[in-house]
Amino acid sequence: MLTVLFADRTQNWPAYEGALTAALAEAGIAARLVLPPVDPGSVDYIVYSPRGPVQDFTAYTRTKAVLSLWAGVERVVGNPTLTQPLCRMVDQGLERGMVEWVTGHVLRAHLNIDFFLSHQDGIWRQAGHVPPLAQDRSVVVLGLGALGGACATTLAALGFQVTGWSRTPKTLPGITCLSGAEGLRAALSRAEILVTVLPNTPETTDLLNAETLALLPRGAAILNPGRGTLIDDAALLAALETGQIGHATLDVFRVEPLPPEHPYWAHPKVTVTPHIAAETRPASAARVIAENIRRFEAGEAPLHLVDRTRGY
Amino acid sequence: MLTVLFADRTQNWPAYEGALTAALAEAGIAARLVLPPVDPGSVDYIVYSPRGPVQDFTAYTRTKAVLSLWAGVERVVGNPTLTQPLCRMVDQGLERGMVEWVTGHVLRAHLNIDFFLSHQDGIWRQAGHVPPLAQDRSVVVLGLGALGGACATTLAALGFQVTGWSRTPKTLPGITCLSGAEGLRAALSRAEILVTVLPNTPETTDLLNAETLALLPRGAAILNPGRGTLIDDAALLAALETGQIGHATLDVFRVEPLPPEHPYWAHPKVTVTPHIAAETRPASAARVIAENIRRFEAGEAPLHLVDRTRGY
Repeated sequence: MLTVLFADRTQNWPAYEGALTAALAEAGIAARLVLPPVDPGSVDYIVYSPRGPVQDFTAYTRTKAVLSLWAGVERVVGNPTLTQPLCRMVDQGLERGMVEWVTGHVLRAHLNIDFFLSHQDGIWRQAGHVPPLAQDRSVVVLGLGALGGACATTLAALGFQVTGWSRTPKTLPGITCLSGAEGLRAALSRAEILVTVLPNTPETTDLLNAETLALLPRGAAILNPGRGTLIDDAALLAALETGQIGHATLDVFRVEPLPPEHPYWAHPKVTVTPHIAAETRPASAARVIAENIRRFEAGEAPLHLVDRTRGY
Repeated sequence: MLTVLFADRTQNWPAYEGALTAALAEAGIAARLVLPPVDPGSVDYIVYSPRGPVQDFTAYTRTKAVLSLWAGVERVVGNPTLTQPLCRMVDQGLERGMVEWVTGHVLRAHLNIDFFLSHQDGIWRQAGHVPPLAQDRSVVVLGLGALGGACATTLAALGFQVTGWSRTPKTLPGITCLSGAEGLRAALSRAEILVTVLPNTPETTDLLNAETLALLPRGAAILNPGRGTLIDDAALLAALETGQIGHATLDVFRVEPLPPEHPYWAHPKVTVTPHIAAETRPASAARVIAENIRRFEAGEAPLHLVDRTRGY
């Protein structure tokens, strides 16, 4: 009988209890799910969240793996007390949620939906307002991991000209794939709509700054459902002011909840959504957790194991 | 040398002249493109629009076909002077435009984008505002012709539960296809988001009326990029008032441009877009026209020939 510690906020327990119980049973794992406080020496697996009570892993000497409920692991990957294997969450529900948010907001920018919503004034503005077809619209996705890759593929299937960029070279059917520093400049220079789905690492911090924002075509739209740290906020606000950037739709921020006094809230060219693009859904996330416990117990390679040197 | 009469409004000639010239040359057709006025007896083909100068076809005794630039032919199909074959426009650009408009506005409703746009007030509303996944959202498409079928297929590929309805039974992969009067009631009763892409015929006039609107799940969203006549406007306004319908996004109207005093413009639960969903794009439309002239000249079956008894 394994002991699996649920180390997310207690308020999330009701949503996960049934989902984890069902997923563990489905995977054929005999386990008891426990909540803190618990004897650390008794815990086989930790279901982890950066908002949960376990941030010092020293006493968890028996623990075989830390299984994150979050896709982003930047808050834990550098934790010096963490000596156990760490797995990220790559949840089908999270991936689908991300794809839907990105596709919806790309089409919102492409079709200029905000313009029509704010011009319900009795004037029939057809001439000059028929949007181009997706085949004539260049969309760039920064980050081609599980989430970014799924977004890029879906946008390409809708007909958009999609360029994807990643740190290391990748190949995806139907996507122009670029990589490295030169590739980034080329990608940004064609981004009528830019979507950032990169992880938070030292290399991606402030990736969008005064210099890189200047490379975008004038009036470009930016969508950030990735990480708040990807954007130098002061540089983005300045670029919105000059018109270099036409609009930004932001789902993630350096501080969340985004403070009420933050200039993004009231900015006419910024749309804030409250970190809803890639919320983990309990049912599908629980299946990933259970499958990884099954793999560790069977000595198989786990899913989505974090490489500490890369940081994700 | 064939004579092809461009019988759309003169203001559209600059957009079409180059496109038609190129498409005819590409199809290997020797033709001269002419504008009115012209001797009707000299015209081999009419490129037709209901807004153009030719609405009496009596004198066009030599004309082999009338080739519509519009997908909807309701304004000409009953014209008693029209004895020549009539072809509708089914334009790749028009189809893609329709798919993009429909997908964008379905995702807008699905993701509740308007809610976030109107709540940029510093309050972080995450709990209770994460939308369901598309796989848990039921979308219904009325009309499974070239346009409706493409919309249904695209929405299904995004993961939505898609039900399609058509007058006569059809089969589309990944779509629950219903037909007939009973099928219509079943389809409407599950339509959290309803998309109407039907042609304008006597049978579809006021298809959405007080009785059928009452069949929808309470708070449903309606998108009409099809024809203005599909909706009984007074019944829709009443259903929006009671909350039976949550929102309507309308691209087509009985009278266009929609008059400034029409209640749709100022209604908080209605979004008007100015007939932009399925605008014919000159380049791709010209290729359809040229291909049909080639087919008529070669004695082959033309594309999109209108069945006068059905009305489309």
